[in-house]
Amino acid sequence: MSDLPLAIGIDFGGTSVKTGVLYRGNLIEEAPRIDTQEFQEARPLIERIHRTVEELRSKHPRIEAIGVGMPGFVDFPTGMVHNLTNVKGWQKIYLKRELNELANLPVTVENDANCMAYAEWKRGAGRGMRHLVAITLGTGVGGGIVIDNHMVRGANFVAGELGQTSIDYQGPDGAYGNRGSLEDYVGNQQITDLAYAAYSAAGTPKEKSECEPARLSNLARHGDTIALGIWDSVAKMLSTSLMNCCWLLNPEAIIIGGGVAKAGPLLFDPLEKHLRAQLSPAFKENLRILPARFGNEAGMVGAAALALEEAGFNVDD
Amino acid sequence: MSDLPLAIGIDFGGTSVKTGVLYRGNLIEEAPRIDTQEFQEARPLIERIHRTVEELRSKHPRIEAIGVGMPGFVDFPTGMVHNLTNVKGWQKIYLKRELNELANLPVTVENDANCMAYAEWKRGAGRGMRHLVAITLGTGVGGGIVIDNHMVRGANFVAGELGQTSIDYQGPDGAYGNRGSLEDYVGNQQITDLAYAAYSAAGTPKEKSECEPARLSNLARHGDTIALGIWDSVAKMLSTSLMNCCWLLNPEAIIIGGGVAKAGPLLFDPLEKHLRAQLSPAFKENLRILPARFGNEAGMVGAAALALEEAGFNVDD
Repeated sequence: MSDLPLAIGIDFGGTSVKTGVLYRGNLIEEAPRIDTQEFQEARPLIERIHRTVEELRSKHPRIEAIGVGMPGFVDFPTGMVHNLTNVKGWQKIYLKRELNELANLPVTVENDANCMAYAEWKRGAGRGMRHLVAITLGTGVGGGIVIDNHMVRGANFVAGELGQTSIDYQGPDGAYGNRGSLEDYVGNQQITDLAYAAYSAAGTPKEKSECEPARLSNLARHGDTIALGIWDSVAKMLSTSLMNCCWLLNPEAIIIGGGVAKAGPLLFDPLEKHLRAQLSPAFKENLRILPARFGNEAGMVGAAALALEEAGFNVDD
Repeated sequence: MSDLPLAIGIDFGGTSVKTGVLYRGNLIEEAPRIDTQEFQEARPLIERIHRTVEELRSKHPRIEAIGVGMPGFVDFPTGMVHNLTNVKGWQKIYLKRELNELANLPVTVENDANCMAYAEWKRGAGRGMRHLVAITLGTGVGGGIVIDNHMVRGANFVAGELGQTSIDYQGPDGAYGNRGSLEDYVGNQQITDLAYAAYSAAGTPKEKSECEPARLSNLARHGDTIALGIWDSVAKMLSTSLMNCCWLLNPEAIIIGGGVAKAGPLLFDPLEKHLRAQLSPAFKENLRILPARFGNEAGMVGAAALALEEAGFNVDD
């Protein structure tokens, strides 16, 4: 519908806060980023975000809601942020209430990976689907799950943590004591370490910086067999967690985003192979493995769309 | 409500079919079992089941629905059974339609592990919960998932296969090529094999039959350290798949049934320990790990309750 209103989407990252105006999944203006490290407490940072919001509203009067994606656990109904590891002073911050009081607009606060999943579901690769799993691969590994046309949040609103699921019950302890967590196998740094070790073992050592995922993709595209082998290994490890999601939830699609997904077919081709080799027909017949539509703007897009839906607007058009 | 009707619950197993009359989760009469191996085709077996149904109906006139739990994948809306591995002639059998035509009662057909989960959710350990994961441990490992007050069936109605999820990405191939599938670590036979190997390695070999789960529990209860160690190992492996469910779905409870669960605290105590050691607070604060209420009757109870709900009756009272 042409009269769908605008919304502000805020992607609150560990180092900076991105704020944009969204219209049906399109970022029509982005404000200058806010550096989180300049703030020692939550309140001044919230006030700074509010100033940015008001600057955008002065230019776009039809803004009806504000959505915020947070890099941490959020109590969805109250919009309380439990704790941020990389930003000072963020423990038990009732962001939804505080920003709502300042801006006098409906505010929705959600985990950033759920925002990414929501963006892909409502505006991206998963449009129209009833069941999907979204995963974002970068420094960390996050995820979001849609079942029966609803975002899965769970009993305490913390569901969807694909990166913390285990692929090896005898693996090393993860961030929460969880042995063999996927994040510790296919995070940016782990891929780099894996490649570094493989080149060294082959007697053709490289600098660490040459082993980063983007560089590794270039090497693989030029036929470097070690680089190709690393992407196959990453795909194999990743396929384990994704296959587990399939056996448990039988989704229509798995949508993969984040920096590591930029490897494209180098990752997706072996991933298709490993995943399909480990599923029975009913689980893979209609299964699609799709690259995410959105990149860095996914958090803003998803937060904005979610905020509009929570404010009562239909975002399925 | 006192006027909740009766339903027939049918637990279709690999070797026998159990048929009972259920009232609010109570098995008030069970018919003699039907031996599946006497039948070479589906139709005569369906007619035999129908005869049993009519015998029960002649004694209990208020029966309003028939529910069937099947040991295989079912297309839930049509009640079509894809394939049974242990019963001859069961490929693409429209059981719901055939039994409905014979009995002229509403018929619901569902996977047996989902029936077990449904029984625990509506009539057992999970009553009143919105989010739970149920797992049944026996020869095989099955499961069922409830999210936001709905049974999770997925795109092709085959969700909930906990036994096929992987706990080791480098493990041996499972039944569907799925490496390291839980079923291949904590099934009845695997526990027996594990114990047999442990006693042999310790220089105190035992017969295979002495290493079966029930015997192993007896040994552990008498302080046998090898038996205690096996239960701890089983709990550790099992905790991996259950932890994955928690990270993905953030349930309120995990409900554990099946023959292996009869080990009781020998399994549940180390399981609590391993599971809680691998979850962050928001995932474990309210998490309950519960033994199933129902044993062998779980399939009949769940099938009957599900059939009543599908027929429009409220089974939440």
